[in-house]
Amino acid sequence: MTEPVNRDRAETGRVEAFSDGVFAIAITLLVLELHGPVLKVTDRDAHVGLWSGLLDEWPQFAAYLTSFAIIGIMWVNHHSMFSAIVRIDRPLLFLNLLLLLWTSLLPFPTSLVAEYLKDGDTNAAAAEAIYAANLTLAAIAFSLIWMRAVRGGRLTAVRLEPRAEWAAVGRFSVGTFVYAATIGIAFVSAIAALVVQFLLASYYAFEQVTS
Amino acid sequence: MTEPVNRDRAETGRVEAFSDGVFAIAITLLVLELHGPVLKVTDRDAHVGLWSGLLDEWPQFAAYLTSFAIIGIMWVNHHSMFSAIVRIDRPLLFLNLLLLLWTSLLPFPTSLVAEYLKDGDTNAAAAEAIYAANLTLAAIAFSLIWMRAVRGGRLTAVRLEPRAEWAAVGRFSVGTFVYAATIGIAFVSAIAALVVQFLLASYYAFEQVTS
Amino acid sequence: MTEPVNRDRAETGRVEAFSDGVFAIAITLLVLELHGPVLKVTDRDAHVGLWSGLLDEWPQFAAYLTSFAIIGIMWVNHHSMFSAIVRIDRPLLFLNLLLLLWTSLLPFPTSLVAEYLKDGDTNAAAAEAIYAANLTLAAIAFSLIWMRAVRGGRLTAVRLEPRAEWAAVGRFSVGTFVYAATIGIAFVSAIAALVVQFLLASYYAFEQVTS
Amino acid sequence: MTEPVNRDRAETGRVEAFSDGVFAIAITLLVLELHGPVLKVTDRDAHVGLWSGLLDEWPQFAAYLTSFAIIGIMWVNHHSMFSAIVRIDRPLLFLNLLLLLWTSLLPFPTSLVAEYLKDGDTNAAAAEAIYAANLTLAAIAFSLIWMRAVRGGRLTAVRLEPRAEWAAVGRFSVGTFVYAATIGIAFVSAIAALVVQFLLASYYAFEQVTS
Repeated sequence: MTEPVNRDRAETGRVEAFSDGVFAIAITLLVLELHGPVLKVTDRDAHVGLWSGLLDEWPQFAAYLTSFAIIGIMWVNHHSMFSAIVRIDRPLLFLNLLLLLWTSLLPFPTSLVAEYLKDGDTNAAAAEAIYAANLTLAAIAFSLIWMRAVRGGRLTAVRLEPRAEWAAVGRFSVGTFVYAATIGIAFVSAIAALVVQFLLASYYAFEQVTS
Repeated sequence: MTEPVNRDRAETGRVEAFSDGVFAIAITLLVLELHGPVLKVTDRDAHVGLWSGLLDEWPQFAAYLTSFAIIGIMWVNHHSMFSAIVRIDRPLLFLNLLLLLWTSLLPFPTSLVAEYLKDGDTNAAAAEAIYAANLTLAAIAFSLIWMRAVRGGRLTAVRLEPRAEWAAVGRFSVGTFVYAATIGIAFVSAIAALVVQFLLASYYAFEQVTS
Repeated sequence: MTEPVNRDRAETGRVEAFSDGVFAIAITLLVLELHGPVLKVTDRDAHVGLWSGLLDEWPQFAAYLTSFAIIGIMWVNHHSMFSAIVRIDRPLLFLNLLLLLWTSLLPFPTSLVAEYLKDGDTNAAAAEAIYAANLTLAAIAFSLIWMRAVRGGRLTAVRLEPRAEWAAVGRFSVGTFVYAATIGIAFVSAIAALVVQFLLASYYAFEQVTS
Repeated sequence: MTEPVNRDRAETGRVEAFSDGVFAIAITLLVLELHGPVLKVTDRDAHVGLWSGLLDEWPQFAAYLTSFAIIGIMWVNHHSMFSAIVRIDRPLLFLNLLLLLWTSLLPFPTSLVAEYLKDGDTNAAAAEAIYAANLTLAAIAFSLIWMRAVRGGRLTAVRLEPRAEWAAVGRFSVGTFVYAATIGIAFVSAIAALVVQFLLASYYAFEQVTS
């Protein structure tokens, strides 16, 4: 009876290691989407070139910081979740791959936000809405993993109280709902949507710190 | 007598860790091949620019999704295979490097498919055929690893029944055969070849989930 | 009482693994910022093209080497620090993410230095000052991690002597101060600032070797 | 007395994990230096475009394959070496960072070879000579690590016979000598130098397989 448990534990370990790898790579690849300003020859001669060029490209730094915070929080959450999970089954493996899909895709909409946010037109809204949709899909994947794992103590060491189980589902749902709401907000103001996303990530980070 | 076994186990661990690293990096690097549309100035002013620009570039998303699914399935397969393998010898190490070669090369033909698929001419066929050849070579490397490891229980903990051994070889061969067939299909219809490849990866993912 | 310690130890392990991943990726991504010279057609015909083109781009190699040395030293330091830390709490997790933010951002200012250092004007100063600010923020994050961990033996196995505690804080402060000073030096001479940064990293590497 | 040994073992583990990370990333990043051919509009219409365009760029595939084989062999060698090393000291840590520097730099000269090999003039020679110099420096770093670790059984579990010690040093020296020789060969024929480098890597791979 102990053998399969050991084997499962080892499996948890390798899933965590692979996921950590993808999180670490995605969070570090974000920097490749940052670009120095293209200074015109006359700008290079002028004495304000690089500073003002970089300030002018603030959206790419805002998008970088937001995505970094979100992937960082996702890693912390993934970590907490898998410290409760002691068994892996194939649906969980598949749902985890789904989460990794949305995580490793994130640098792409981040680059769209970086490029179009300042335009302030339909393109800015589209870029932000796509970014928000990506975040929403990642949050849904998190909820699905959690529901697969905890329902009836299926893959966890201890069966959670239904209350605690639902509290966790509720917490995930709030995140999912807020990210989904930013899809709509993007069409009113793309910048407002990014601010809400950043504040939500900061709130989660702060909650992690204080709770 | 126990010492060499321990050493071999440690070796299995490090081969798995290195392979996991390459799988995790290759699957995450795929996103760097995604590019936002190049909008002409007039497009940027128009209110449909980014949406239609992205829709227009659907082949890169189809290729991204297919490659992500394939590398994900390959990681799951590699994982299953090495949970049965308890010893490493040098031919196995070499065959594993061969598999990692085809895995880490995959983002390149993926980018060719992304760029040429829509052209629908000989270039689309060439791009898809190269992609299919890469997948076929990876599937062959998988079969070689398996044959090296299980023949006569050479590197596995328990000697498999010849029946089970051949069943596994058979399963790999089906994949190899289908991927090889898409090399030919590419010259009839590059899009059809990509669809078959995506369906095969989905089938494997589904089989993983239900079996 | 032992359980939480075990759990914490496992947590230390996963934080270290994730951090090692980010350090390893950031240090290896630096190479993507290196570019071959753009040779004009006439240069390609000439027999000195590539050599002189590369020599002409010495700032990118100086910046690469400095950043490689700094991230390498940071990894060694992080390693030493976490060999003393046996428990993780959430503020520490958050401060560690802050350190990883500045680490994984470093390739961007490195590329700015590579591009602007030779210009020797305000742009070179700006690029170097931004690079120096990044290094300073990373050094501050290191001090914060250390202070969080050792104050009153909060997260360490053994409570350090106040003397040893302050010696370590002092050592970090020197680094922070020197990096901060290079922000100012950059406006006098960007090249001098880079030289100071490289020497400081070399000093730390040498100290690691001999102490 | 056991405590420091345990700590050292853990340190070996983390050095190996960090090194494996850098090897895995460097070997996977190589694919980012592969580029599809730039087809002229008329080529795209023609029915031979992509095939002939890719064949025309054979040097990038030759360089990719050679670098992949070399980093793969380096990983196998590093692995063998550290299975004999049970203690880490700071000079070893520093020498290992030096090896990782040359490893993670390799994609850059690989891209130079890919771009200039076919030119067949001084630029091709320069690109190949730089590539050869990088390989030579990596081989020297390997020798230095080995000499630091085994001299007098300093960092190994068992003291090697002087004979075995020198045999290993000899084996490394042959590699170093051949790579150094290809610096000179590059100025006679850049393609011949690349062929020698590829054959040497293949020989090492074959030796690994059969011995």
